[in-house]
Amino acid sequence: MKARVALLGFGTVGQSVARLLIERHAETLELTHVYNRDVARKQVPWVPAGVIWTGAIEEVLSARVDIVVELIGGLDPAREYVTRALESGASVVTANKQLIARHGAELMALSRRHGGHLRFEGSVAGGIPVLRAIEDGLSADRLVRVAGVVNGTSTYILSRMEEGATFVDALADARELGFAEADPSDDLTGRDAAAKIAILCATALERTICPTHITCRSIESIEPVDLRYARELDCTIRQVAWAEAGEASEPVVAAVRPALVSRQSPLSRVAGSQNVVTVQGEFGGETAFFGKGAGGDATAVAVVSDLLAIVGTSDGTGAGPRVRPGAGTGVGPGARRAFRRAPSRVSADYSAPHYVRFTVADRPGIIARVAEAFAKQDISINAVLQHPGMPADRLPFVMTLERCSETRLDAAMTDIARFDFHVQTPVVLPIFEGAL
Amino acid sequence: MKARVALLGFGTVGQSVARLLIERHAETLELTHVYNRDVARKQVPWVPAGVIWTGAIEEVLSARVDIVVELIGGLDPAREYVTRALESGASVVTANKQLIARHGAELMALSRRHGGHLRFEGSVAGGIPVLRAIEDGLSADRLVRVAGVVNGTSTYILSRMEEGATFVDALADARELGFAEADPSDDLTGRDAAAKIAILCATALERTICPTHITCRSIESIEPVDLRYARELDCTIRQVAWAEAGEASEPVVAAVRPALVSRQSPLSRVAGSQNVVTVQGEFGGETAFFGKGAGGDATAVAVVSDLLAIVGTSDGTGAGPRVRPGAGTGVGPGARRAFRRAPSRVSADYSAPHYVRFTVADRPGIIARVAEAFAKQDISINAVLQHPGMPADRLPFVMTLERCSETRLDAAMTDIARFDFHVQTPVVLPIFEGAL
Repeated sequence: MKARVALLGFGTVGQSVARLLIERHAETLELTHVYNRDVARKQVPWVPAGVIWTGAIEEVLSARVDIVVELIGGLDPAREYVTRALESGASVVTANKQLIARHGAELMALSRRHGGHLRFEGSVAGGIPVLRAIEDGLSADRLVRVAGVVNGTSTYILSRMEEGATFVDALADARELGFAEADPSDDLTGRDAAAKIAILCATALERTICPTHITCRSIESIEPVDLRYARELDCTIRQVAWAEAGEASEPVVAAVRPALVSRQSPLSRVAGSQNVVTVQGEFGGETAFFGKGAGGDATAVAVVSDLLAIVGTSDGTGAGPRVRPGAGTGVGPGARRAFRRAPSRVSADYSAPHYVRFTVADRPGIIARVAEAFAKQDISINAVLQHPGMPADRLPFVMTLERCSETRLDAAMTDIARFDFHVQTPVVLPIFEGAL
Repeated sequence: MKARVALLGFGTVGQSVARLLIERHAETLELTHVYNRDVARKQVPWVPAGVIWTGAIEEVLSARVDIVVELIGGLDPAREYVTRALESGASVVTANKQLIARHGAELMALSRRHGGHLRFEGSVAGGIPVLRAIEDGLSADRLVRVAGVVNGTSTYILSRMEEGATFVDALADARELGFAEADPSDDLTGRDAAAKIAILCATALERTICPTHITCRSIESIEPVDLRYARELDCTIRQVAWAEAGEASEPVVAAVRPALVSRQSPLSRVAGSQNVVTVQGEFGGETAFFGKGAGGDATAVAVVSDLLAIVGTSDGTGAGPRVRPGAGTGVGPGARRAFRRAPSRVSADYSAPHYVRFTVADRPGIIARVAEAFAKQDISINAVLQHPGMPADRLPFVMTLERCSETRLDAAMTDIARFDFHVQTPVVLPIFEGAL
């Protein structure tokens, strides 16, 4: 007996999922329903005749399918549909990062209570099977840190700026190529990456954190001059999201920041729409996963692999997709489990070396005053960089700082902000040096 | 009830496995036996008092443990012990690449027949959970190609040569640092990598091939001048193992070669003892996995994660480790399965651009004669490189060739070998340009 699968949402990913199901997995998985608003305009001839096309969600939710695939996106009405599907005892596969980051714990509890599975590989890093690898493949290790470059729009823009483009031109190109959405603010500000790192944190560190508590800084402050200085430091600039956890009583340290990443770090080795996720284990050291972070086909592989995982854990024959009660994530007790623990507090008080770029109306004594403010916070200066030939009334120069906490750095920067030589707000970037 | 685990072999990996079991997984997994030859000299105080130390394999095999962890290495007697453990209905976890590459199909069939599991994540790429990610995380995709830089000794030597060391010095350093074994010939010739690519091929492409049928070329022919030419071509040199599969009726194309790899390729981005494995999927594109390829702790994570996977698939409660019959790999019907199909033939007739370095006693007309031999085989020359200031009686020069099959190239090289201007056998390397 095949598992009956309903698809909610027939956009790019939904169409790729349908195609993958029909072309390669028809023996195990039967597509029974496609739900979409205005479904008539979505209908395609290559879907088998028996599939029910509907714009009425009730028709799907009352059909007692085995697995509901949610690809609508956003919180509303996706949350309601997923909740109702799980309450009916169905399993759910979703690629909805906001939904899982915000409501993963609640939905996971619901899936356990009603005996369904909830899986969400497609919600993070598209086609890279990173959640599965962390859950199962690294289950024996204690993971202490997870980091990633997981927003393709930001990576595309910063790669283009590396080649000399301005921010505005790079964003325009990203829009034209379909990398950036009409409103790219979640990509640029880091809110998109915050949702993804919250899911990675829940899976790798087994700590549930609210994505809205993760502080983000936008990449919009980055200028071509920063990429030039970065190159001088054998680095590039990427939007990095990361989370670190120590004792259970301590808050999770998590943040999203444009950051200098050393050319030696795997975080520097992505361009275009590629994603990279690295995890640091107490025993296994650093492991990195690279691949396509977006795109219908890559995400569809993640979604359908989740479907196969659910069918696979049913009864070992593939016959009975209504799975053993309480299985939850679809994996056994050996595996790492996301969204099981009570929510953790989030702190952004990480410690790192930093890059600070000042833009000033030049006059004698500026470096001395800035250096004094850093010294007051016990922050050591590593280097001062200044390219020749810049205008004196709008002079950019860079200081790199030894490892210090963001809190102390913020205090120093608050002091420094009071000086009247600034032409522009200073740009502060942590530096990631870690080599794989 | 905990799963009872016996450890065969208490070397570096065995000790790390024991420590990980005791420190982190004592609630699920109980170490009951440690078998080693001359066991008395191996005994350590940090293992719980109840563990039986023995040099008598019969004592372990008759103890009816749930899972036997084989870390003895080599074919004999490991094959016999694993066979007998599986025949007794126990599950087996092994990190033994030669055993799995050579006898994976036979042992997998045995595990199915007797209701145990057989898992071997630690046999390839140490701490990188690449088999699990391929089996489960990419299960929905059709994978067409798997490639890797999976021999740490070769990578170490070639990285050192990049920095200017000679082969002999780099090998001596590798030995001193413990990267290279007393007899490193399996590492240098590619036999070690051939075993690993055979396992990756079985898992990713679901094609069983005999590792002894994979042709290898040694890295011993590489000289510092090749790394200098490689850099000029924006490449480096790595020992690359790969396998590609098309139709089931066609042979698998597989080989191990020192190769030029473009700086854009993930295969170039490993140094020291790191490993990288990339897979190419029809839907998901290229995904790459990086991490520690060796070392006791990293491999122990793979081994213990396999143990947890077996316990996890038992009955969902973690209680009964004697698992459901026929589960085989420990995963459900959705997952990709290694070593299920009848053996496939292996061909090395791949097609690639090539690098050929000649070392000649210089005189007019050499390039013309070489070019003519290539033209006869319909092979196009892309570029000719020759560094100035080389001795005329021992002149190295390089030709890069457009994509051609190895068979045609071999024919041309056989022709060219007949010329009397060679001072040294030409060095032929395929070029991998693929970007992630």
